[in-house]
Amino acid sequence: MTGFAFAVSAVDGRARRGSLETAHGIVDTPAFMPVGTAATVKAMMPGSVAATGAQIILGNTYHLMLRPGAERIDRLGGLHRFMNWPGPILTDSGGFQVMSLTGLRKMTEDGVVFRSHVDGSYHDLTPERSVEIQRLLDSDVTMVLDECTPFPADHATAAASMRMSMRWAERCRRAFVAREGYGLFGIVQGSVYPDLRRESADALRAIGFDGYAVGGLAVGEGREATFATLDATLAALPEDKPRYLMGVGKPEDIVAGVVLGVDMFDCVLPTRSGRTAQAWTAGGPVNIRNARHGEDTRPLEQDCPCPACRNHSRAYLHHLVRAGEILGAMLLTWHNLQYYQRLMAGLRTAIAGGELAAFVAEFERRRLQGDIPPP
Amino acid sequence: MTGFAFAVSAVDGRARRGSLETAHGIVDTPAFMPVGTAATVKAMMPGSVAATGAQIILGNTYHLMLRPGAERIDRLGGLHRFMNWPGPILTDSGGFQVMSLTGLRKMTEDGVVFRSHVDGSYHDLTPERSVEIQRLLDSDVTMVLDECTPFPADHATAAASMRMSMRWAERCRRAFVAREGYGLFGIVQGSVYPDLRRESADALRAIGFDGYAVGGLAVGEGREATFATLDATLAALPEDKPRYLMGVGKPEDIVAGVVLGVDMFDCVLPTRSGRTAQAWTAGGPVNIRNARHGEDTRPLEQDCPCPACRNHSRAYLHHLVRAGEILGAMLLTWHNLQYYQRLMAGLRTAIAGGELAAFVAEFERRRLQGDIPPP
Repeated sequence: MTGFAFAVSAVDGRARRGSLETAHGIVDTPAFMPVGTAATVKAMMPGSVAATGAQIILGNTYHLMLRPGAERIDRLGGLHRFMNWPGPILTDSGGFQVMSLTGLRKMTEDGVVFRSHVDGSYHDLTPERSVEIQRLLDSDVTMVLDECTPFPADHATAAASMRMSMRWAERCRRAFVAREGYGLFGIVQGSVYPDLRRESADALRAIGFDGYAVGGLAVGEGREATFATLDATLAALPEDKPRYLMGVGKPEDIVAGVVLGVDMFDCVLPTRSGRTAQAWTAGGPVNIRNARHGEDTRPLEQDCPCPACRNHSRAYLHHLVRAGEILGAMLLTWHNLQYYQRLMAGLRTAIAGGELAAFVAEFERRRLQGDIPPP
Repeated sequence: MTGFAFAVSAVDGRARRGSLETAHGIVDTPAFMPVGTAATVKAMMPGSVAATGAQIILGNTYHLMLRPGAERIDRLGGLHRFMNWPGPILTDSGGFQVMSLTGLRKMTEDGVVFRSHVDGSYHDLTPERSVEIQRLLDSDVTMVLDECTPFPADHATAAASMRMSMRWAERCRRAFVAREGYGLFGIVQGSVYPDLRRESADALRAIGFDGYAVGGLAVGEGREATFATLDATLAALPEDKPRYLMGVGKPEDIVAGVVLGVDMFDCVLPTRSGRTAQAWTAGGPVNIRNARHGEDTRPLEQDCPCPACRNHSRAYLHHLVRAGEILGAMLLTWHNLQYYQRLMAGLRTAIAGGELAAFVAEFERRRLQGDIPPP
């Protein structure tokens, strides 16, 4: 057998509790994947990432192909060994970052030619090359190369963009070498147009993938449109394959995605916030730089098992952030990843117990209550 | 009893194996103190600092008095609790950093007035205030406020500077509140003039301190003059008190200092190097940014127990440093602190076994051999 074993063990409404079996281990879903752009989840040792409960991380093809290079990582035994992360890895296709290189790239039906932000050298990224790079990285989950349709786009533009992505998806499928525990995910595009989303989902199903991602959302269309489009898209996807909402998001967006039936998420938010003094808590985001934390001896969250909360006060974290200390980024990143993983564990338990509605209500109550008041 | 219990358990030539008993624990000497300037050993969790074998760290009065402030740290339970370092802490007097503020400070017999680099506010640092700040920090080892005589200084200038420092030392001694497990160290000055160094040592002995530091060395006088002056200074200090060589240094300088009878060292070198791609090894410094490490799958040091060496290749460290990743600084800092602590442990064992000469010969052989050759 090739691809993944994916089993849904419980459903609660449209939400699903499942497990995805990859070559490098099992991923309990719904899952949040910390982003490890350049072969490191920033400011975290890989063992610490695992200690937060994360089972799978995301690597960025664009960054890795430029530095240290896919062939070098292959010679060094693949990305897992290179970065000492023995668990599952999903890699993106590189397309999203390349398309963002305004003025430095040229896209045709064949693929994209672009200039490296590292050294100015020219590179080709085609569907075939993207799949090859991800194979060299030894990625468990390969993503097809697509165009993340810019927002806003009129119907005709969105349709043309999506249809090219579907032709690329087919080329990726042909280029992908099927192996047990390794899989290829298609990506639904179509901007905010339900008919295009359905057309895209149908095209991908016809090709056949090991999982289906929803791309091109949370790019400026507004939260209501994001979730309306997501809702319409998920209805067109097969039940027996994992569904991945790309690049989302805030805790409340992840909860909303899980309720609609999403199985996998990734976002730079917890790690990036950790480097910019923002902590995520049950009471919402906390700006630890704020003067009110200056003499607060309490932890960020009383019941959190991360080292920032077990070993340090808000006052100390406040000091570290004010002083620009690396340890501040280390501790807040760890806390944020821990918060996200605790949220996912809570969602999985709630779905398994048929108590998702109560979980979501309590999540919203705590979030709207805000941060714990000063002592 | 007030001050410290300091016991020398073995000598080998002039080198001493001892232990210093402080309010927050025992320090095995010769000891290297990692620098934790702003209430953090940069890029390290406090538990990780302890895991390298470090028993005592150094905090900087200048930085802490400005941010978060000595009174705030006192209200938060002292520096140990604030930064979650339960072990012994030595604090400097703030003098060295304040004197470096060219144009922003004015020194008189009373003390120094200076402007904060953080917010431009004016502050006073007198011998009495320095001792008070260090008491508010709950420092185990308080250092007297002194002037680190700039180099070069003619004999008259060096004498005047040193004699003011001796008057300040006496004011510090009067201001210091003696308690068991807490102590005050005097600092010998006198530039490179043996007669002034002896005069300074005699003045400090007459006042009486719990330990004696050698200051104003390694400030540009050259290695030969450093150790000649150190040698002359140590001869004038009491045998039954700990001796601390301030701000030194490279591994070979620490070894040379131990041979002459120094008990304590501090230096930013291992931590600062860790943030600038330089690793310290038995074969000397290694610039991990160098292209020759790009595909080297071996660890920095085969026998090192730090996570950089246990879990990662030189190739990966090279990549992290090239990509400017925080994890590069975290891993190299840990390795460097581990290297320094392993060196100190080796020196202590060698002194205890009467084998220091053989240890030093092997240390020099490995160092001059250089880094392990590429595979």
